[in-house]
Amino acid sequence: MVKWKIIKGGITAPEGFEANGISCGIKKGGKLDLALIYSQIPALTAGLFTASRFPANHIILDRKRINKYKEAQAIIINSGNANCAVGKKGLEDAQRITAKLAEELNIKSQFVLIASTGIIGKRLPRKKIERAIPLLVANRGKDKAELASQAIMTTDKKPKEIAVELNISKKKIKIGAMAKGSGMIAPHLATMLCFITTDLNIKLSLLKRALREAVGVSFNRISVDGEMSTNDTLIIMANGLAGNKRIENQRSKEFFIFQEALKFVCQHLSREIVYDGEGATKFITLRIKGAENKYGAERIARRIASSPLFKSAIYGENPNWGRVIASCGASGVNFNPEKLAIRFAEKFVFKNGKPMENASRQLKKILENRDVEIEIDLNLGKEEYFLWTTDLSEEYIRINAGYE
Amino acid sequence: MVKWKIIKGGITAPEGFEANGISCGIKKGGKLDLALIYSQIPALTAGLFTASRFPANHIILDRKRINKYKEAQAIIINSGNANCAVGKKGLEDAQRITAKLAEELNIKSQFVLIASTGIIGKRLPRKKIERAIPLLVANRGKDKAELASQAIMTTDKKPKEIAVELNISKKKIKIGAMAKGSGMIAPHLATMLCFITTDLNIKLSLLKRALREAVGVSFNRISVDGEMSTNDTLIIMANGLAGNKRIENQRSKEFFIFQEALKFVCQHLSREIVYDGEGATKFITLRIKGAENKYGAERIARRIASSPLFKSAIYGENPNWGRVIASCGASGVNFNPEKLAIRFAEKFVFKNGKPMENASRQLKKILENRDVEIEIDLNLGKEEYFLWTTDLSEEYIRINAGYE
Repeated sequence: MVKWKIIKGGITAPEGFEANGISCGIKKGGKLDLALIYSQIPALTAGLFTASRFPANHIILDRKRINKYKEAQAIIINSGNANCAVGKKGLEDAQRITAKLAEELNIKSQFVLIASTGIIGKRLPRKKIERAIPLLVANRGKDKAELASQAIMTTDKKPKEIAVELNISKKKIKIGAMAKGSGMIAPHLATMLCFITTDLNIKLSLLKRALREAVGVSFNRISVDGEMSTNDTLIIMANGLAGNKRIENQRSKEFFIFQEALKFVCQHLSREIVYDGEGATKFITLRIKGAENKYGAERIARRIASSPLFKSAIYGENPNWGRVIASCGASGVNFNPEKLAIRFAEKFVFKNGKPMENASRQLKKILENRDVEIEIDLNLGKEEYFLWTTDLSEEYIRINAGYE
Repeated sequence: MVKWKIIKGGITAPEGFEANGISCGIKKGGKLDLALIYSQIPALTAGLFTASRFPANHIILDRKRINKYKEAQAIIINSGNANCAVGKKGLEDAQRITAKLAEELNIKSQFVLIASTGIIGKRLPRKKIERAIPLLVANRGKDKAELASQAIMTTDKKPKEIAVELNISKKKIKIGAMAKGSGMIAPHLATMLCFITTDLNIKLSLLKRALREAVGVSFNRISVDGEMSTNDTLIIMANGLAGNKRIENQRSKEFFIFQEALKFVCQHLSREIVYDGEGATKFITLRIKGAENKYGAERIARRIASSPLFKSAIYGENPNWGRVIASCGASGVNFNPEKLAIRFAEKFVFKNGKPMENASRQLKKILENRDVEIEIDLNLGKEEYFLWTTDLSEEYIRINAGYE
C-alpha cells in the first residue's frame, strides 16, 4: 500500500525551498506577474518542454542550462508576456534577467532558470523585471508559495497548487507543485507551466524517469482546445534535503512510492487545469477501450477531444451522441461499426451496431452533471487510452476574441 | 482564353435535367426537406464520398451502384436525418426509398441514387418519404432547381446554386450545381452535399478526372471547423444531351475548357459554403508559400484553420498574430523562425525572425474587413498551398449546443 497525505504549503512545503510572487508592472492594475522559486542549495533538475518548432526564448535558455549543468537553484517566472517571436533580443533579455537574479541571490547564473507566459510577439519589459528583482528576492519566504502560484496565472480563474508528504526509508519526504493552464491546453506534452519541488534524495536518471512516467498519465492526458503552446514548460527540482538514502534503483520500493506520489501530484494539477479550462463548464473523461493498439485508441480520444461539434454539444447538454460516432469515423482508425459500443456514465447509447432505445432522453439527464464520462468500446482488442477534456462554450470565444 | 458565362437555372440549366423540392415532414414547420434530381436519359455518373470509417447508409448504397452501373438517372436527397448509425435497417430504408422512386419514375432502381443529411442515430422516417414521392415526381420541372437547393439545407442560411454556359466544339454546354454546407466542413474531401449536372458528352474516365482535379482546388480547400462528416457526398451526372463530339482526349482543348469551367463552379460553391459557415463572420484565405514540400505547406494551413485560438482572435478582430506563429510551431513542420515572414493583406507583421513595428495597430484596421488574406512565407522552398476558412464565433457554439 502506497500512502501519502496532502499537506499545505505548495512548492515551499519541501525542505529548503522558498518562494515569492509580486507585481512588477507587466500586467495592468497591480496584478501579480513575477514569481520566484528558490532552493537553499543547488537541486538536481529535469525539464520537459513544448514540442513546438517555435519555442519561446526561455525554453532555449533552460534546455541548454539543464542539459549542461543538471542542477538549478532558482527559477524566475513572469506572466503577461511570452517572450516568444520577438527576434534575437528575446534570448538576450532572458539571459540578462537570469544574470540579475543570480547576482541578487549571490548564486551562479548557470543555476538560474526562467519561464514566461502571456502574449506572443512583444518584447519582454526587461527593465521592469530587473527593477523588481531586489524586492522579489528580499521578501521571499516559506509562506509565499501561494503568491507565487498567483503570479504565474494568465486567464486562470484560480491558482493551482498542491503538496504531499510521504515516508521513504523512514524519512519524511515532501513534494510541492504549482501550475497554470487555462488556454492552449492540448496534445503533445504539457501545454502549461508547472513547477515541482521535492526534498527527496534521488539519482538524476530516476528523477527524469519518474517525471516522464507521471507526465505520460497526467499532463499528456489533458486537452482543453487541442492547441499546443510555444511556452509549455514543466520543471522539477530535487534538493535532497530530506536526508533519505539516495534512491538509485528503479525497481526499489522507495522509487515506486515516489513514482506513485508524483503521479498523484501531476494528475491532481492536470485535472485542476481542465476544470479551470477557458470557458469550461464540463469535465469530460474519454475512455477508449477494446482497441487493437494504443496509438489508435489515443487518436480516437484526441479526435473527439478536439471536435468543436462534440464539445459544443456537451456544453449545450445536447444528447446528440452522433457527434461521438462522427469523430470516431473521422479519426482514420480502423473499427467495426457493428461491434462498437458507446456508454455515457452508466447508460449505453449505442451497442452492436445500433442505437439503444430512449438513449437521447436518458442522456439529457446524465449531461446535466458537471462530470461526464464517455466510454467507447471498439471490441477489437485489449488496448485502452483515457483523456480528460472540456466542453466548448461561448465564454471560450469571448475570452479569446479579446485576449491581447 | 477559356470563357464561360454564369447563367440562371442551377442544376436544371443543362439539357434534359429536371428537379423538385418539397416538404415531406422530416423537418418541423413545413420546411422543405426532400429533393429530386432527374435526367431524361441515364447519365454517366461519378461520385466522391467521405473518408469517414463510419459512412452513412446512402454512401454504402451509392458507392456500390456507381461502381457497378456507371450511370444514374435520378437522385433523391433528404435533409433533417443523416440515416447513419441506426443499425442494419438503415441500408434497407435507403434501398426501399430508391426502389419506390424508381417505380414512380418508371426507371430501373439501379439508376437511382440517394443522399441524406441531418441528425445521426435516428431511423429515417421512411414512410413519410415514400408517401411524398408521388408528389415529388409528378411536380418536377425545369423551374424547380431552386426549390431543390432549398430542400437540401440544414443550418445553411441560404441556398447555394450556380450554372454556367460554355462553348465546346461549337455546341453550347451547360454545367449546373447545388450544394449545402455550413457545419462539419473540413479536412479530407468535401464534407458537404454537392450535386453537379451537365449535358456534356464525355468519356467516364475523363469526367472522373475533371471532378478530382476540380475538387482538389475547391472542396478540399475549405475548412469551417476542422470536422469530417459521416455523410459527405459529391455526385456529378453527365447525360450528353448537348450533342457535342464525345471528349475522349485529356490533352484536348475541349477537355481543358470543361476542366476550367468545372473548377470555377466548384470553387464558387466552396466559397459560398465558407461564407455561410456556421456562425462565420469572416472569410479567411490562408496562403502558405516557400515550403520545402506541398504536404508541409498543407499541414501548416490545416493546423491554423483548425485552431480555435486563432479563429476566435480573428472573430474578435484581435491583432494577436502570435496565434499564427503558435500554430506554425505546433504543426510539426520544419521551418526556420529567422526566415519566416507573415503578411495580413498588404501588411507584414513578422519578417526575418522579428515582429514589425506598429504591426498590431495597422492589423486592427485590416481585420475589420470581412475578407482577410494571410500569407505565411517559410522562405525555404518553392511549394505552396492555399485554404479557405472562417473565424469561430459565439454563434457557432449556440448553433451546435442546440442542434438535435
